[in-house]
This record gives sequence, structure tokens and C-alpha cells, in this order.
Amino acid sequence: MSKSVVSFLSDYGLEDEFVGVVKGVIGSFSPSTPIIDITHNILAHDIRAGSLALARAVQYLPEGIVLAIVDPGVGTDRKAIAVEANEGGKIFIAPDNGLLPPALSLFGGVKKVVELNNEQYHIKAFGGTFAGRDIFAPAVGQLLVGTNLEDLGDRVETHDLKPSLLPVPKISSKYLEAQVLWIDHFGNVQLNLDAQDIDFLDNNLSLVINGQTMDAKRVKTYQDIVEHQVGLLVDSYGMACLSMNCQSAALALDLKTSSKVVLSNK
Amino acid sequence: MSKSVVSFLSDYGLEDEFVGVVKGVIGSFSPSTPIIDITHNILAHDIRAGSLALARAVQYLPEGIVLAIVDPGVGTDRKAIAVEANEGGKIFIAPDNGLLPPALSLFGGVKKVVELNNEQYHIKAFGGTFAGRDIFAPAVGQLLVGTNLEDLGDRVETHDLKPSLLPVPKISSKYLEAQVLWIDHFGNVQLNLDAQDIDFLDNNLSLVINGQTMDAKRVKTYQDIVEHQVGLLVDSYGMACLSMNCQSAALALDLKTSSKVVLSNK
Amino acid sequence: MSKSVVSFLSDYGLEDEFVGVVKGVIGSFSPSTPIIDITHNILAHDIRAGSLALARAVQYLPEGIVLAIVDPGVGTDRKAIAVEANEGGKIFIAPDNGLLPPALSLFGGVKKVVELNNEQYHIKAFGGTFAGRDIFAPAVGQLLVGTNLEDLGDRVETHDLKPSLLPVPKISSKYLEAQVLWIDHFGNVQLNLDAQDIDFLDNNLSLVINGQTMDAKRVKTYQDIVEHQVGLLVDSYGMACLSMNCQSAALALDLKTSSKVVLSNK
Repeated sequence: MSKSVVSFLSDYGLEDEFVGVVKGVIGSFSPSTPIIDITHNILAHDIRAGSLALARAVQYLPEGIVLAIVDPGVGTDRKAIAVEANEGGKIFIAPDNGLLPPALSLFGGVKKVVELNNEQYHIKAFGGTFAGRDIFAPAVGQLLVGTNLEDLGDRVETHDLKPSLLPVPKISSKYLEAQVLWIDHFGNVQLNLDAQDIDFLDNNLSLVINGQTMDAKRVKTYQDIVEHQVGLLVDSYGMACLSMNCQSAALALDLKTSSKVVLSNK
Repeated sequence: MSKSVVSFLSDYGLEDEFVGVVKGVIGSFSPSTPIIDITHNILAHDIRAGSLALARAVQYLPEGIVLAIVDPGVGTDRKAIAVEANEGGKIFIAPDNGLLPPALSLFGGVKKVVELNNEQYHIKAFGGTFAGRDIFAPAVGQLLVGTNLEDLGDRVETHDLKPSLLPVPKISSKYLEAQVLWIDHFGNVQLNLDAQDIDFLDNNLSLVINGQTMDAKRVKTYQDIVEHQVGLLVDSYGMACLSMNCQSAALALDLKTSSKVVLSNK
Repeated sequence: MSKSVVSFLSDYGLEDEFVGVVKGVIGSFSPSTPIIDITHNILAHDIRAGSLALARAVQYLPEGIVLAIVDPGVGTDRKAIAVEANEGGKIFIAPDNGLLPPALSLFGGVKKVVELNNEQYHIKAFGGTFAGRDIFAPAVGQLLVGTNLEDLGDRVETHDLKPSLLPVPKISSKYLEAQVLWIDHFGNVQLNLDAQDIDFLDNNLSLVINGQTMDAKRVKTYQDIVEHQVGLLVDSYGMACLSMNCQSAALALDLKTSSKVVLSNK
């Protein structure tokens, strides 16, 4: 692990020094290890949003350690874990609360899990509220300086890990009842439908959103959408996505994460 | 290029994992190459704002690769390009949409341009909407591992590059009609006037903003401005700038990017 | 210093290219030196908030250089300084305005202070408004390439440094009159009371906030707080902290930095 990269996602935000302190602890073990910030602006305590962002990013990250912290249960008996994936040369460090499973499923599942309960490797501190600094970061640091995964704590059975709960669309021969998974910075609206799910749809579509029916067009790229039109395209993750031309589709359609959208041919 | 630094500017924002994914792709080619974030909070799709921020920053960046992504035309036939500048040891990677010219003009102009259309070096993915990940980042990575610029795609003639359109002030012997180029984090208001343009102005000035006339003072530093006064100074980029004492001049004067300001002696 | 890490805190925000430019200047001296962002979202010009964030972070940062810039007096005769601490292997670079003392007190105080007034090591630029780029960053760079601290400018006597003014609580045998030091990203409210100060408090407490009396509970972790209840706990910095269960205590109690809170047994 001594030549690896650390990739880091959290809901710590960037207003406080939390992210810097976690990097400081890691850097105190291994100053020259590069750290890639995936994002730190996951909505506070939103495990689902964190797990989706991690799954979208993870196959593009270098080999090494992936540190993910969205942790509403910090200080309780939820486990802090390190997980070795079957493929991809990655070790994941995170709370055991459903944050990791969508990412792990992209690497052939789980090879080995350890609970980070060897207190010899914790930073002693007041309170129990900053596990990122006191438990997760030192675990990353120990792996970087050559400590074995097994030394960080007790083995955990894979089937004991907390699963992830993602919404499943309702798919009939005429209608698709979908949910908004993610609204990105540009206001594009990703649905829980993949390219195959929307294959039967023609160029002219009907959407039902918040009880209102409206038209949409199947398109290939953002630029195929004319002004004020709603486009449905396959986004760069292979998922169905509602977009508008240089404006936020989420704002225009009043859509939020978990909003319902029904799609059909016109 | 193997020992260089990558500097990275975009309008991706920091809420999503976009920036982290681009860095992940680059890091998969060359994990130890340092990456400097110039900023990722350029207003979405605002090519002019991106080109100005890049021009303000670029002479202070180390030798290496400058990656700039503000790309409302992603997925269309706008070119993705790599540009070698005549001076400064820098290669710029960006969409060909006017984002680069102000920065390139600071390095003696353009030596060589290549379109990033060699698909052998693209990441195959769904959709065509994340060129940062699928086209730009792998191009950076290829240069870092020693691939020649010429191998990334076809040569493009310099005169075919899209120019940048920056506003020109109207300068008479009595009046300066200027436009706001940039409002910074502290509310300082940079105008499209340089130090020489405002040379004929005395210590006591009149401003016309939104149809209202008001007083201002020529000053040297922020601290020379007394409370509630508007100061005109030469900022750290050599440009004329309206400022107030520990408060936002932009808020107090209701100025935005592209607002008009007329300056004259009182 | 050639193998050290630079840790960097400022109030520059992340909208502009300021942080990137400072890193660019440092990287032009020493491209491979890692830079850790502590945070750049200190409220503009808020020296006290910056000094507290730095003090919370500093003991977790690696050996090396700590660059801290919250600098409302930029361009005036306030000194730019480099400070070697007695312990911890750190050199601090900052304006002399009270930003450093709380951090320095954690490292056995001050060993040596130099004013960064050797203009040979400044970047010549227009205006005097971007000391981060023109004075502080080159000083960091010079230390990284082996220039002696003493060469950066004139020695300053330690007792001439500007002190930090932090609020002191009023502590009687029955009441604690405290002030809010910090509200974090999750809405947790840190008070200017340490673990010992609140030792005499029982499990059932009264708080007086904005003239209103309300109940609170002594707890150990966030998860011990039931819904809609206010908890008082010792946070991960050893300080007293008001929290609620998965919601912002600051919002619910209408508390801001410097707000007053009176605590007593019920």
C-alpha cells in the first residue's frame, strides 16, 4: 500500500477544518501519499446520496484506499470497518451503514472485512464524535505504512454487513414509474432507469411530474434539446436523465432527490 | 512532462464528484503528479468568467499542463483541443470555445494545436456528456506518461481557433465608460480599465452607476478608504477596481458582472 | 524543510482563483511538496474564527509549514511574519493580527519571529492587495528550497506580536455564563467551556438563551439525545457543546457565533 493513492468522500462540507484535519492525520503517517477529494458536499447524514456518488466515481479512482465518511451514527455501536474488495486493488474504509455496498458491487463484492476496533490504532481524544480523525484516518495511515488489514481489528462476516437500500422502478409495457436518484450541479436529473429500461420509448414522450403531464423528447446530447424543451437522454453513467438546454431541468420541473416521474410514449 | 504539475479550472462545482473523478482518471495514469485546483466554482457555462479567472491565475502556475473545462457545448462538434504555448513550458487542454485565448496571449501565443480526436485515447462510456472524464482527463494522463502531443489527434491551424470576446471600454478625454469584469469573494469590483486608463483621474471622482451619480476617491490600498466611502485603486492584477472598507462594494453599489460604470473627475 | 508538508488556511473562499494562485506560487518553488487545505471558508476578515479553526486543527497537522491568511489589514503596516514554534517542528506564516497565538500556545510558544520584509523575496506586482500571492506564498517557497528563516527579513521580539482576544466565561458555583465559539457544519454549538468547567452539572440542566429558559440533558454521544431534545456533551476537542439528534442545534436554538448561553442545574 505504500505507493497507493487515498480517495476521500464525506459529508463534512468545506466550511470547517474537518477535511483538513483528516488529511493532516493521514499526512502525519505518510506525507507524500496523494489524496484525491471525491467530494465533501454530500448532504449532511444522507447515506444514500453518499453511496450513489461513491458508486458513480469509484471505477475511475486509482488503486489504493477509498475513505468514505457519511456517519450519522458516529459514537454509537455501528461498526467502523475496512473492506477489501475482490477486484480492483482497493481497500474501503467507512462506517458500516450501507454507504459502501453499491461501490463494492462494482468490484466483484467483498473479500475480507475487519472492524476497526483495535484501540491501539485509535487516536485518544475527548468525546467520541470525530471518528474521521480518531479512528478512520489513523486506519488509513496504518495501512499506508504497512500495517496488515487484519491487525486493525476483528474479522467480520460479509453477511453481517449492513445492506444498501436503493429504490427500484416499476416497469410495465406502457409506463415507467421512476424516482430521481441525483440532481447534479447543472440541474440534470438522473432517474433510477438504465439505458435498456427506456429502450421501448419513442422520440415523443409524456412525463407526469407532481400531477402534471408534459411533453419531452428523446435526444442524444444536451445540445439536441431546443430551448424550453425537456430532453430525455442516456447520461455518462448509462442512466436515464432529464435535461434542458443550458438551464436547470430540476428547477424548471420542480424535481428533487426521490421525486417521482412517470414516463410513457405520447 | 513526467515531472510536471497539472493545474485544473472548471465550472463543475464541488457538490458532485465530477472534479474527483477527473482527478481519479489522471491519477490512474500518474498517481504522484500534483494537481492544483485553480477553482471549480466558475458560474456554470460562463466561458467569459472562466477565461478571465484563468488569465488572472496562469502566470503564477508552475510549468506543466493546464486543464480548463467550461464546456456548454459538450457532446456537440465543438473541438476538444490541446494547445502548446510559445513560452512558459505549458500545454493547455480545453474545449475550443474561447476559454483559452486570454491566457494564451500571456505566453507569446500559440505554437501548436491538436484536436483530441484520436479515439484510441478516449474512455469508452455511455452518452457523450462527461468529456472531462472521457476525453480531457485521459489526454492529460497520456501526456504525463510520455505520449506525444501529436499522437492525441489531428493538427489544427491556429487561425481556426475560436476567439475570445472581451468588452472594450470607451475612453474619451473626460469620461471612461467601463464594464465590470469580475466581482471577487470580498466584493471588490474589477473594471475593464488598466492602470494607464485611469491615470488622468484626480483624487476626487464621480461615478455613474445604474443612473445614479456618486462620489469616489482615488486610493492606494483598501485601508486608505474610510467607512462608507467608495475607493478606486489599482488592484493586484494592474486593473482598476472599486472597493469599500471591509464591506462588499458590489453589494453596496448593486454591481454585477457586465454592469456599466462611468468614471470622470468631479 | 525540503521534505515537509504545507498546511493552508484562509478566508479566500473557493469561488475565485486565489487559493489556486497561492498554491501555484508555492508549486513553482517546490512542485512535489504536498499542500493540505485546512479550510478556505473562514468568514471574510473574521480573525477570531480563523484563529479558532487553526487551533482546533493544528495539533493534527504534519510537521512543516502552516500558512494562515485572514488579513483585513492587507496593504497597511500590519506585519507579515514567519514564526518558529518551540515544539512540533512547525513554522507558521501569517499576518501579525492575532491569528496565530491560540495555535502557537499548543506548541510551547514562540522561539523566533521574523518580519517578511526582505523585498528581494517578494513578487513584484501592481497594488498591494494580494499579499498571499506576493509575500506569503514566496516566503513559503523560499523555506521549502532551503532559504533560512532569518533571511526572510528582520527579527521581531516575541512580546511585540499582536495578542489574540478570546472570550472568557463567567463561572460561579451555580451558573455558567458562556459564549458560542463555533457552530460547525452539522449545527453543533461549541461553547467557551471545557470538560472541567461543566463537571458540576447534573443530568438535567436549564439553559437560558435569548431570554428564554429551556431544558437540556447531559449526554455522552449525539445518539444519546432523543428527538427534539437538546444535549450537552464534551465534544472531540474537549469543549462543551450543545447538540441535537440529526438536526442543527444552532438553527433550532437560534444561536450564532458569540451568542450568550447560561447553564445551570435544573
